[in-house]
Amino acid sequence: MQTLIEVDVSKPAAEQGGVIHNRWHPDLPMVEMVKPGSSFRVQCLDWTGGQILDSDSANDIRDVDLTQVHYLSGPIGVEGAEPGDLLVVDILDIGTLAESDWGFTGLFAKSNGGGFLTDHYPDARKACWNFEGIYAQSRHIPGVRFAGLMHPGLIGCLPSADLLKMWNAREQALIATDPNRVPELALPPNPASAVMGRLTGSAAQAAAQEGARTVPPREHGGNCDIKNLSRGAKVYFPVYVKNAGLSMGDIHFSQGDGEITFCGAIEMAGWIDLHVEVIKGGMEKYGIKNPIFKPSPLEPRYSNYLIFEGISVDEAGEQYYLDAHVAYRQACLNAIAYLKKFGYTGEQAYAILGTAPVEGHISGIVDIPNACATLWIPAEIFDFDIMPNASGPEIMVSGGADLAMAG
Amino acid sequence: MQTLIEVDVSKPAAEQGGVIHNRWHPDLPMVEMVKPGSSFRVQCLDWTGGQILDSDSANDIRDVDLTQVHYLSGPIGVEGAEPGDLLVVDILDIGTLAESDWGFTGLFAKSNGGGFLTDHYPDARKACWNFEGIYAQSRHIPGVRFAGLMHPGLIGCLPSADLLKMWNAREQALIATDPNRVPELALPPNPASAVMGRLTGSAAQAAAQEGARTVPPREHGGNCDIKNLSRGAKVYFPVYVKNAGLSMGDIHFSQGDGEITFCGAIEMAGWIDLHVEVIKGGMEKYGIKNPIFKPSPLEPRYSNYLIFEGISVDEAGEQYYLDAHVAYRQACLNAIAYLKKFGYTGEQAYAILGTAPVEGHISGIVDIPNACATLWIPAEIFDFDIMPNASGPEIMVSGGADLAMAG
Amino acid sequence: MQTLIEVDVSKPAAEQGGVIHNRWHPDLPMVEMVKPGSSFRVQCLDWTGGQILDSDSANDIRDVDLTQVHYLSGPIGVEGAEPGDLLVVDILDIGTLAESDWGFTGLFAKSNGGGFLTDHYPDARKACWNFEGIYAQSRHIPGVRFAGLMHPGLIGCLPSADLLKMWNAREQALIATDPNRVPELALPPNPASAVMGRLTGSAAQAAAQEGARTVPPREHGGNCDIKNLSRGAKVYFPVYVKNAGLSMGDIHFSQGDGEITFCGAIEMAGWIDLHVEVIKGGMEKYGIKNPIFKPSPLEPRYSNYLIFEGISVDEAGEQYYLDAHVAYRQACLNAIAYLKKFGYTGEQAYAILGTAPVEGHISGIVDIPNACATLWIPAEIFDFDIMPNASGPEIMVSGGADLAMAG
Amino acid sequence: MQTLIEVDVSKPAAEQGGVIHNRWHPDLPMVEMVKPGSSFRVQCLDWTGGQILDSDSANDIRDVDLTQVHYLSGPIGVEGAEPGDLLVVDILDIGTLAESDWGFTGLFAKSNGGGFLTDHYPDARKACWNFEGIYAQSRHIPGVRFAGLMHPGLIGCLPSADLLKMWNAREQALIATDPNRVPELALPPNPASAVMGRLTGSAAQAAAQEGARTVPPREHGGNCDIKNLSRGAKVYFPVYVKNAGLSMGDIHFSQGDGEITFCGAIEMAGWIDLHVEVIKGGMEKYGIKNPIFKPSPLEPRYSNYLIFEGISVDEAGEQYYLDAHVAYRQACLNAIAYLKKFGYTGEQAYAILGTAPVEGHISGIVDIPNACATLWIPAEIFDFDIMPNASGPEIMVSGGADLAMAG
Repeated sequence: MQTLIEVDVSKPAAEQGGVIHNRWHPDLPMVEMVKPGSSFRVQCLDWTGGQILDSDSANDIRDVDLTQVHYLSGPIGVEGAEPGDLLVVDILDIGTLAESDWGFTGLFAKSNGGGFLTDHYPDARKACWNFEGIYAQSRHIPGVRFAGLMHPGLIGCLPSADLLKMWNAREQALIATDPNRVPELALPPNPASAVMGRLTGSAAQAAAQEGARTVPPREHGGNCDIKNLSRGAKVYFPVYVKNAGLSMGDIHFSQGDGEITFCGAIEMAGWIDLHVEVIKGGMEKYGIKNPIFKPSPLEPRYSNYLIFEGISVDEAGEQYYLDAHVAYRQACLNAIAYLKKFGYTGEQAYAILGTAPVEGHISGIVDIPNACATLWIPAEIFDFDIMPNASGPEIMVSGGADLAMAG
Repeated sequence: MQTLIEVDVSKPAAEQGGVIHNRWHPDLPMVEMVKPGSSFRVQCLDWTGGQILDSDSANDIRDVDLTQVHYLSGPIGVEGAEPGDLLVVDILDIGTLAESDWGFTGLFAKSNGGGFLTDHYPDARKACWNFEGIYAQSRHIPGVRFAGLMHPGLIGCLPSADLLKMWNAREQALIATDPNRVPELALPPNPASAVMGRLTGSAAQAAAQEGARTVPPREHGGNCDIKNLSRGAKVYFPVYVKNAGLSMGDIHFSQGDGEITFCGAIEMAGWIDLHVEVIKGGMEKYGIKNPIFKPSPLEPRYSNYLIFEGISVDEAGEQYYLDAHVAYRQACLNAIAYLKKFGYTGEQAYAILGTAPVEGHISGIVDIPNACATLWIPAEIFDFDIMPNASGPEIMVSGGADLAMAG
Repeated sequence: MQTLIEVDVSKPAAEQGGVIHNRWHPDLPMVEMVKPGSSFRVQCLDWTGGQILDSDSANDIRDVDLTQVHYLSGPIGVEGAEPGDLLVVDILDIGTLAESDWGFTGLFAKSNGGGFLTDHYPDARKACWNFEGIYAQSRHIPGVRFAGLMHPGLIGCLPSADLLKMWNAREQALIATDPNRVPELALPPNPASAVMGRLTGSAAQAAAQEGARTVPPREHGGNCDIKNLSRGAKVYFPVYVKNAGLSMGDIHFSQGDGEITFCGAIEMAGWIDLHVEVIKGGMEKYGIKNPIFKPSPLEPRYSNYLIFEGISVDEAGEQYYLDAHVAYRQACLNAIAYLKKFGYTGEQAYAILGTAPVEGHISGIVDIPNACATLWIPAEIFDFDIMPNASGPEIMVSGGADLAMAG
Repeated sequence: MQTLIEVDVSKPAAEQGGVIHNRWHPDLPMVEMVKPGSSFRVQCLDWTGGQILDSDSANDIRDVDLTQVHYLSGPIGVEGAEPGDLLVVDILDIGTLAESDWGFTGLFAKSNGGGFLTDHYPDARKACWNFEGIYAQSRHIPGVRFAGLMHPGLIGCLPSADLLKMWNAREQALIATDPNRVPELALPPNPASAVMGRLTGSAAQAAAQEGARTVPPREHGGNCDIKNLSRGAKVYFPVYVKNAGLSMGDIHFSQGDGEITFCGAIEMAGWIDLHVEVIKGGMEKYGIKNPIFKPSPLEPRYSNYLIFEGISVDEAGEQYYLDAHVAYRQACLNAIAYLKKFGYTGEQAYAILGTAPVEGHISGIVDIPNACATLWIPAEIFDFDIMPNASGPEIMVSGGADLAMAG
């Protein structure tokens, strides 16, 4: 497998020879060109570009510079691809770099990024994971081990100028409804820390002024954080610019549905092997607005789930109207309350839900006024039996291990 | 298996000997008492009590009286169960009644109930399904057949007086924010058409005045419409009143995650075989607020999914903040647009998403401002290949079959 | 679903109105005719025709009259089916009869039928199973419960006269190599106890003289005892006579690969719902000699297997050449030795392997001189953890329950 | 992950610094010692030590020197392990070597090794496979691609002197029954080409005289060719000598149950990551004679199988008694006849059955006189639909690609 893009994890993102960018913009030059039908390897930095260490302090999580994220490798041009086509991307394989054989999970501080349960867990915390072959385990979270479902959290093609304009307009409109909110409602373009690949000089500065931030998923895919875009999956991406311009990064060793701690997956640097084809005019042929995909035959097989329900009544008892966000939060809180009965701290349980291959389903979405969401935990990932029984739970996790703290 | 509760589908719900109720209230007398460890059969009317016919007109859907729903069988008392316990319910099996071997799916009119996509499909429509063993197929939706994942849409224990009061208060508060909305935000207690089981006279009248409507799922479970509470599942229900008072109904032959057409599952009359046990003090032991459950080993096995993404930007391009409801709606609309390319009408595609064992995942819920939801369609349920290819889709479904209309 | 063939389990097989036969012969008249595209129900006696009781004595197993088996329902004629066609049979559903809601497993005495491990377990023994919805459990084998994978042990079309002649010739040749062996090598035609459906008088007598016994699977399918011909499966049967002549019986609630105790599945009376189609000339078109099939999407899902290996060296240490029979026997014996460490008797463990959904794989078949077979036990079927650990097994099963004995 | 054993695929097996052996003998010195609880990487040559080339000629297959096989890496000593213990081996991961990113499948000539269907396919043939991430495909077999289920074909601990003596005695006894058979019944010790690791001089010569050949699986595991000993599996090996002495090799990218073409898997050089623990006295505690194991959660997921039956009547119509070997051969021949209808040559179909993740089940093993075996082909591995339909198969594979020939 030919390596198309190489990175050096010991160097800053801006010193990677222009193969890295952290904003979406149609003017980004292709760093490599490939033909339809070709296969190649792309190396990626971790999403923060090395800001987080394999350590027992969460100061790095507390102080992370989020204007830098996400560092993406690309864009890669595909010959003959044109707006309106579908770029068919086989994610052939994903792996770790020999020099970086570990991963991290962060609970971001509410004042710097936050997360799904940031009102409950507002402080910066960190878990480090070591990889043992297909499995991950953490010295900060004993009693749990699972097979990775490696995937790029972020992958997609460059937006057109019109699409970019639309993104910026609609997100700015949202921000305008509550501009001082903490955490913020959305992230506007920000030239600070922008890395614009092979754009230089005033072109780079201009693009950085309007380049879309990489945090949200959008029409092109982007930061979908779909755990099932895993090695072996086949993805059909809309093409908006000549030669498509495929970029990717934010590789996860594993993640639960929702990536609930925000930096919630097991984050890592690594490589992705890809194969690309083009379906001419595929967007119109198939009525495609967002990417579609086929999952991999190689997803881990679990069958012994314990499932938690949540409804759209919030922690204070307030009733929401078919709000799946609130319902899923309740399902997560219910699962955390349960896991704490076995000795986990809330932060540990929260991190398990973010990293392990848990499933989050929208189970009922029409039964006014309550949405019903379910959270599926594979019981097989624990060293002990988590199923209920008549005698009640025993403390199985103890002895002081916990997520690293800041301070 | 002993039949504890029998129904007669040829008679109205109010003439079933008091074994049916359609409101939640702690004063409902137990219709039968069982011991922990016992197994028994419960027959159930369809959720509307026979208002819908196996016909090619949707007038019955248009005119359905929703003050009547849902007709539940029970409550069944379990000896020794007390508030704070967990009632462990094995759903041993579910089946159809010999005299009622069919099911229906309705798109409710926007003016009478609506559904997840009611702004797109505001008119009453209906599909009827015939059951061929484990499979369902519909003369109104050609080209699709799937194995049923039978489950009770609605099951749970009676609320305590305090819990009922809380439900009514919070839902009334929501209604008060927009009392004239169509469809309504929530359904307040309504004595019209209330069937109160074995309560009679003024006690029945009083209970009907405050009995909670059955539409939303709540802390006790209730109308969760979780397709995975299927035969073979084991559910742990919170107990709020002496003897628990387990009721159930709204049996579905099959349903997709979300039950998106509201009357979106394949609705049927039928029977459920149950086994009950009690975990004393289980709510506190395990920190339980909502039911938890283990799925069945007998769920249909599919592996060849086509997956659609949706983000929380609505049809008009407006940006929402991490709104999984909007994101799932977009995923559904994307899937419908795709299926139409093969010749389905929008209503047919909408009904497929409501009834077939599709999965709805909350894939990303932290990447501000966009939630990302995914809709998983098992390709195996179609007679033809729905995967994309270079030449584009062919019209595979044609010839005039469509959902029944009203008028 | 129309019931095409009804049986009365309270009456002998010969008094079922001619819808039962227990020999294969081309002259058997069709008991019903159906059109391609039709669906219908067929009721079946248990394979012994009611010889075995739900009791705690194995006298009935010891004394079973094996000249009677297997009692089949049919043959059913399919209009237009001709030799060389494929009969496409959808097994739509299978169920128990209300009046016969239980099943049995027998270890046949070595002197009367035997079984796979008859040299180790030569005595008649019996386990009775009660069905709790989709699950089976036995008072004779505590600690184990599993979801049924119901299937007809025996199903196929009538042989032609030539095919029948070939069967009889080749099996007689085998018998001739050791005619006095106990158990016998094969079962020749035997008019004693023959039930020939609607054939009467001298025609019946003549057919009984040459009708093939039902025990072995043959080219037409027949007694394949393939656990995966379960409800929801689609089978393609070769057709040898005009109108095909489909017969079936020997319904199993569950069975492990190999049905190793001979009467090793959970045997029951019941019903089967079928749908039939015809592929004209399908045998030649697809090069078909034996039936082929697609399994059901509704097979129970297990993932936590414990797997035992066996090689083709027998219990006495003798070396066999790539003998998968010997290898699988060793894998079974290894599993039994293991399960005994948890307190099971050998007979209980033997019966578990025969009835539970264990898988038997031919793992290596070319590595001279040893075949390698593997036996897969789903750990989820046990009430306790069967996986090895450092402290060793505990006795989990005790208290005197065991398979019923004779005498 | 620390690399414990390194190999150089450009050098002969005998020049690898003594870390390679190709006979089993208790006197082989440990090449490395590890502690229980440690994880490490082991590199392996392909089983032939580089005799086979990535080419379009099968001369190398025809001329392969089978006295050399299998080249194993090890033995590795585990501190504290003693006879009677169980060595618990986690197969953490498996991968290819960067310098050897391809694999091969051989049909061995009947005169030199043969295979399961050697009477039908007696000539040397070869398919080469290239790996695209998790997938394999071959220029010699178009239309098929599948996810690898990588595993060591051969892994186990050193035999004790007594065990070795027993192996040699029983295999010699078998050979003696037909010493001139082609292919031979078993392979006696043969000092020619023996590589004895770090044994030197007369000790090496003596050990080579009696060292067991590596071809058959035996009590210690060895060449089981169980496709499910894949990355993520946990295996419990019997220990027969001080420090256990774990050796392994014969890595397969993928294999079908039975590895029917003998060199039937996709053979490769590569590496294995392992973790080891010890259960003291585990053989007696759990009644272990052969290894037992838990499969990986990462096995490829297929659900759309087409299944072929075979019974124990051979190609000439001769009847065998419950012979699963004959039955499985018939199932394989039936599958090949079927695949040929789509345009495959017999050799291509044979190689597909050997390499793809097909399952081989012993379905019925007690219905005298016919064993029934089933062969499960996952339909998802083909580019086209292989299921039967009314119009019959179309030629989907053509254009001259075929397995490489010798000559």
